[in-house]
Amino acid sequence: MKKYGVWLIGALGSVGVTVMTGGLALGRGLIAPDGMVTESKPFHDLDLAPLNALEFGGCDIRCSTILQEVRQMISECRSIDHLLVAEVADQYESIDRRIKPGLALNCGTAIASLDEFQQPQKTLLGEVEKIREEISSFKSENNLEEVVVVNLASTEPLLNLEEFHLDLGAFEKRLADNHSDNIRSGTLYTYAALLEGCPYINFTPSNSTLIPALIELAEKEGLPVMGHDGKTGETLVKSVLAPMFVSRNLEVLSWEGYNMLGNMDGQILNEPENKACKINSKEHVLTEILGYQPHSKVSISCVPSLSDQKTAMDFIHFKGFMGAKMSLQFTWQGYDSLLAAPLVLDMVRLSLLAKKRGESGLMPQLAPFFKSPQGVDEYDHFKQHELLMDYITKVKGE
Amino acid sequence: MKKYGVWLIGALGSVGVTVMTGGLALGRGLIAPDGMVTESKPFHDLDLAPLNALEFGGCDIRCSTILQEVRQMISECRSIDHLLVAEVADQYESIDRRIKPGLALNCGTAIASLDEFQQPQKTLLGEVEKIREEISSFKSENNLEEVVVVNLASTEPLLNLEEFHLDLGAFEKRLADNHSDNIRSGTLYTYAALLEGCPYINFTPSNSTLIPALIELAEKEGLPVMGHDGKTGETLVKSVLAPMFVSRNLEVLSWEGYNMLGNMDGQILNEPENKACKINSKEHVLTEILGYQPHSKVSISCVPSLSDQKTAMDFIHFKGFMGAKMSLQFTWQGYDSLLAAPLVLDMVRLSLLAKKRGESGLMPQLAPFFKSPQGVDEYDHFKQHELLMDYITKVKGE
Amino acid sequence: MKKYGVWLIGALGSVGVTVMTGGLALGRGLIAPDGMVTESKPFHDLDLAPLNALEFGGCDIRCSTILQEVRQMISECRSIDHLLVAEVADQYESIDRRIKPGLALNCGTAIASLDEFQQPQKTLLGEVEKIREEISSFKSENNLEEVVVVNLASTEPLLNLEEFHLDLGAFEKRLADNHSDNIRSGTLYTYAALLEGCPYINFTPSNSTLIPALIELAEKEGLPVMGHDGKTGETLVKSVLAPMFVSRNLEVLSWEGYNMLGNMDGQILNEPENKACKINSKEHVLTEILGYQPHSKVSISCVPSLSDQKTAMDFIHFKGFMGAKMSLQFTWQGYDSLLAAPLVLDMVRLSLLAKKRGESGLMPQLAPFFKSPQGVDEYDHFKQHELLMDYITKVKGE
Amino acid sequence: MKKYGVWLIGALGSVGVTVMTGGLALGRGLIAPDGMVTESKPFHDLDLAPLNALEFGGCDIRCSTILQEVRQMISECRSIDHLLVAEVADQYESIDRRIKPGLALNCGTAIASLDEFQQPQKTLLGEVEKIREEISSFKSENNLEEVVVVNLASTEPLLNLEEFHLDLGAFEKRLADNHSDNIRSGTLYTYAALLEGCPYINFTPSNSTLIPALIELAEKEGLPVMGHDGKTGETLVKSVLAPMFVSRNLEVLSWEGYNMLGNMDGQILNEPENKACKINSKEHVLTEILGYQPHSKVSISCVPSLSDQKTAMDFIHFKGFMGAKMSLQFTWQGYDSLLAAPLVLDMVRLSLLAKKRGESGLMPQLAPFFKSPQGVDEYDHFKQHELLMDYITKVKGE
Repeated sequence: MKKYGVWLIGALGSVGVTVMTGGLALGRGLIAPDGMVTESKPFHDLDLAPLNALEFGGCDIRCSTILQEVRQMISECRSIDHLLVAEVADQYESIDRRIKPGLALNCGTAIASLDEFQQPQKTLLGEVEKIREEISSFKSENNLEEVVVVNLASTEPLLNLEEFHLDLGAFEKRLADNHSDNIRSGTLYTYAALLEGCPYINFTPSNSTLIPALIELAEKEGLPVMGHDGKTGETLVKSVLAPMFVSRNLEVLSWEGYNMLGNMDGQILNEPENKACKINSKEHVLTEILGYQPHSKVSISCVPSLSDQKTAMDFIHFKGFMGAKMSLQFTWQGYDSLLAAPLVLDMVRLSLLAKKRGESGLMPQLAPFFKSPQGVDEYDHFKQHELLMDYITKVKGE
Repeated sequence: MKKYGVWLIGALGSVGVTVMTGGLALGRGLIAPDGMVTESKPFHDLDLAPLNALEFGGCDIRCSTILQEVRQMISECRSIDHLLVAEVADQYESIDRRIKPGLALNCGTAIASLDEFQQPQKTLLGEVEKIREEISSFKSENNLEEVVVVNLASTEPLLNLEEFHLDLGAFEKRLADNHSDNIRSGTLYTYAALLEGCPYINFTPSNSTLIPALIELAEKEGLPVMGHDGKTGETLVKSVLAPMFVSRNLEVLSWEGYNMLGNMDGQILNEPENKACKINSKEHVLTEILGYQPHSKVSISCVPSLSDQKTAMDFIHFKGFMGAKMSLQFTWQGYDSLLAAPLVLDMVRLSLLAKKRGESGLMPQLAPFFKSPQGVDEYDHFKQHELLMDYITKVKGE
Repeated sequence: MKKYGVWLIGALGSVGVTVMTGGLALGRGLIAPDGMVTESKPFHDLDLAPLNALEFGGCDIRCSTILQEVRQMISECRSIDHLLVAEVADQYESIDRRIKPGLALNCGTAIASLDEFQQPQKTLLGEVEKIREEISSFKSENNLEEVVVVNLASTEPLLNLEEFHLDLGAFEKRLADNHSDNIRSGTLYTYAALLEGCPYINFTPSNSTLIPALIELAEKEGLPVMGHDGKTGETLVKSVLAPMFVSRNLEVLSWEGYNMLGNMDGQILNEPENKACKINSKEHVLTEILGYQPHSKVSISCVPSLSDQKTAMDFIHFKGFMGAKMSLQFTWQGYDSLLAAPLVLDMVRLSLLAKKRGESGLMPQLAPFFKSPQGVDEYDHFKQHELLMDYITKVKGE
Repeated sequence: MKKYGVWLIGALGSVGVTVMTGGLALGRGLIAPDGMVTESKPFHDLDLAPLNALEFGGCDIRCSTILQEVRQMISECRSIDHLLVAEVADQYESIDRRIKPGLALNCGTAIASLDEFQQPQKTLLGEVEKIREEISSFKSENNLEEVVVVNLASTEPLLNLEEFHLDLGAFEKRLADNHSDNIRSGTLYTYAALLEGCPYINFTPSNSTLIPALIELAEKEGLPVMGHDGKTGETLVKSVLAPMFVSRNLEVLSWEGYNMLGNMDGQILNEPENKACKINSKEHVLTEILGYQPHSKVSISCVPSLSDQKTAMDFIHFKGFMGAKMSLQFTWQGYDSLLAAPLVLDMVRLSLLAKKRGESGLMPQLAPFFKSPQGVDEYDHFKQHELLMDYITKVKGE
């Protein structure tokens, strides 16, 4: 059987260890594929990479082990079944060895403070070279056909794009000049991944990764890529409910969303500059779907006791017949990493499929997986879902 | 300007008086068309009956006036703006005169107890004749081009269909024999409406109205008809959220819905046999969308203090990645009659359009307006909505 | 150190195994005493039985083991920490040996169907004798100073009290006559416990246990007893919030409570006759506190996926200044057995204290622990709590 | 019949016009006294000022009329019954004439921007004199026995107390020196009220009014006073629920409160410096009751569509037996001004009673009406309520 690599940036974060634990459990047939879109009926005839063909590796700026991180999740919120962990833990150690010290360059103070390696800085090209070697070794040492790189690192502050971010030539010149201002580690990882021939998925809101210059590179290299910001909870519900109001010609007056979570993601998002980046990604969904801007606020609080159990309380005030005001409230309580992880595995498989089919550049068919799907103007969840369904119908028809 | 009639069965119920009050206000341009689908953008180029061309009439088994009913709604739940009522009330009296004493035949004890006229019983055909004359007079006295009949009467107990309900010939023989067992007033109204050449809409869950024999008649007479059970609140949200779980391959474990309302509808639905009919209509939506039957309960309580302010609290338990259980709760607080009324006006206009276009029998394009759209297997709200959008695209293209 | 016995009727139910697991963990100092009232500050100087002095035993009509039941709870709702179980499981086996086959006599079909022993029926006095021997052996074999008997069995159908339930002499005559109509197993257990000199706590809503005849016996024997129906969740919140409306002179119009749970308790309460008994206990709280009867409904649904995670959604509609209607909703999500278990341990200790102090008959100081505190007319939680605080102040002062 | 005056600072705000409208309706017997504590049973024998003996006057910095403000409230959120307004509106005009242009001195930019009079500034003592004359004229022109002054003005930014705020002599010297730094209009109003012999109630969170220097003056002048921040909604519920967790020894891990409202209060509280003052008053309640500081955040958002319909969504995470995490959520939907107004009337009557009884300085018996009752360390609502009950028992006993 051919094997495929999944190289995770931020591998030891809660999404990362959940992807790996779940991936191992699925590979061994220990769990049902709940939450995996590519295991639902419409995907059954597609020639996707088998779940037991996936091998995991990656990098992280924190010094830990998968087992330690998983145990902490269980201790804090009991999201993962300890019996399952007991059955796959024998593979953790070999994966731990494939997780390399990560780089945190120009990512803001919140992320910098997590960096437990503080490695001596190389030149920009030196860093790129180091990452390429890590990916390359992962591939060769594990006899992998392909490697998909997925960014699961903490949300960075919003990057103001400069000229050189928009043009591949200008970007490469900056690297060659070793001019590191506004060059972030995320950008270097993406660049390295593409040079190594890897499809790339940006699961985070950070806008430093799939900058126009690198989308240009992906197109040039024939590599499929997609971002950004995995749609897992409140925004998923929002992108489902907002079209309902449109279909009934009910005006949304106010949509107030309060998000609480307590894991590392929550801690980083407690920093104003990092939170701004996330909220930026969440907020426009509503306006895009409704066609106007209601009063709306998206709030994110770090509530440590919740750990990975993301709780979102939304209040929607709308105007009905004869101007009467009515409301809809919802409370979403989901384990954030367990909602994200299957989507990561789905996108790894769909990226491998796209690469096999010779597709390059952005993958609009992955729109339903993202809060801010790059290159796609559609935010209505079911219309995004149709993009995916149409795609697989087309693939099956060929 | 041509004028069109709207003949409401149960005209003095809260939906009925809201339809008339809102219709008058819209006709005079006093309110924005919030909640009216046919006033949203995609419908702008359609040649629909103008809102100021609608005239109202109908029947009711209770003896009251529109003003009295509207005042009670305002007093109980302040759903309707009293200033608006002040502006249209001058027309109430002339409409009141067009509202005839209604018939309650074999509708169960709860509805029978509302009947304030207790008119001497005619033969079945005598009753049909009486209704036909009422509709016919409404039409001629008001110079109406067409009349659409809409059933807004209280929910009846579920009717067990017999042979004669399924075949027009057998049905007409029963009428001729004046054999009234299992012949309900709703059936007679529908029969009379069709004989008078009126499109017919069953906005209630009662299954006695658009029985197969009468759908056969509608097809024969070239009349568009549709039912049943207007989708206004909890089921609307349900038909929107359930597909989300399908699209993410998340198994719904339990979906418990608690509906509270206090108007006449709530009082009638407090009767077990009437409630059974309503719940029957609400419950299958989930199974149809999900493709399996989760644990599910739909509860309806009469809470008088809420009056028309329908409050639904739903708890959804679902299974995510690695079998973890997560939840979504929602609370819907909407004025039931104000959610229903614009849909009634929408369907009147779309029925008139269908008749003008020579369509006959069931109107699948109206599926998104119903909990149990007759002749349509689709319960996903947005897929139902596409049926409507596809229809108007087709109409516009002709 | 002196040792004290806790003899649980229904020991293998989820509350029972939680009491034992938590009791063992507390005895070994493995957990903090969260949720235990007798470990809070005001109780610090009381001479209560140390938590490591408690020994567990009892009976059950189901054939299982503590470990099996605890594992099922963890598997179904992850309420209990598996690491904690691993630390105390070595003691399970010896306790399992002290859990005797239980008796299910005249308890209704739902409970009868759980009986896995179906032991040959003895005479009534023969059954009493058997239970006395079991308690007596538990005491002597474990060198226990005292034994407290706690009823944790499933909720029975409501018992209509007859003359003989009200008078000890008449009751004992019925036993002697072996006339078993309307004699339930719960009654026999209580009788046997009192004859063995044990304080007795009825944690369930079943009204067959502390019948007047047996309260008379308790008084005669100098034994403290109390019931019924442990106040753990929705009713706790209700008894806290209702007085708020009184204190502000706000009229409660409607209070609708929807309780969902999925454990054995939920399954038994799904039976109409068993549910009636529970609801009877829950419903009067409101009327007693408010001094009038608002529209109110208490609904209990068995939702298997929730297992022990009791979820209650309450909607409270109230009338404020100038008659305006306002609302308060709450959703309570708690592990029912983990809310109940510490109260059981609290009451065991307070019963031992009461016995040592020579108190006999009902213990009004335990009112805050019960939905329907026998012999106490106070339902306001904080006023009940003051009964307890006043009691311990008195005890400390002596 | 003797008459009593109620002089409202911020009379044309939503609380002010609700106090006056409700007061008039109560005086005429048009409504039941829902929400008025002093009309509940325990107060029946007290010799309180009759509700029809109250006359209203005051000041405001906005130029409007009572009718205009009430109509806007009705139009925005239908909180007040328009039929009721029609019955009392004949008295509005004479009250309007008693409402004088208000002063906004050093209250921050948000409040300053509301000032529609922008009157030429007098000296500090000149302003005091002007206010005294207004109160004095109100009293003499209406033959009032007493006048109670109530502060209902918008929340100011938090005032950092200086030396002169703490001592009456120093304070009066600052006035004489006309040194206006950190002298706010609220302080001048309070000073003038006390010099005019009026009991004074600070219903707002602003800490500039009952500064220590003026409490000293109240004591010296024999005047009862109390503040601050009326407890009407979320904090009321909080002060009721938090003691429940204490009584069960359940540790509150996190208590996140999201407050949404859209009236003028909401708009002013949208300003960071004004909001800080409010949150300061709301936040300490929890810590005081629990005895420790859980993770807690109080958020206030201005959601214009809600107008006066304050909506608070709270999420409470707590730790139960064996460390298990559980939660309680609540959603409070109340009309803020209708919750506040009856408390204002209650406190006016209780202040008149206190003055008649010769009480001076702070009134601890009013603690249950305030979020931050000055001079009282008790935050448990029911213990505060007992202070009031004990007080009236004492009064009745004399």
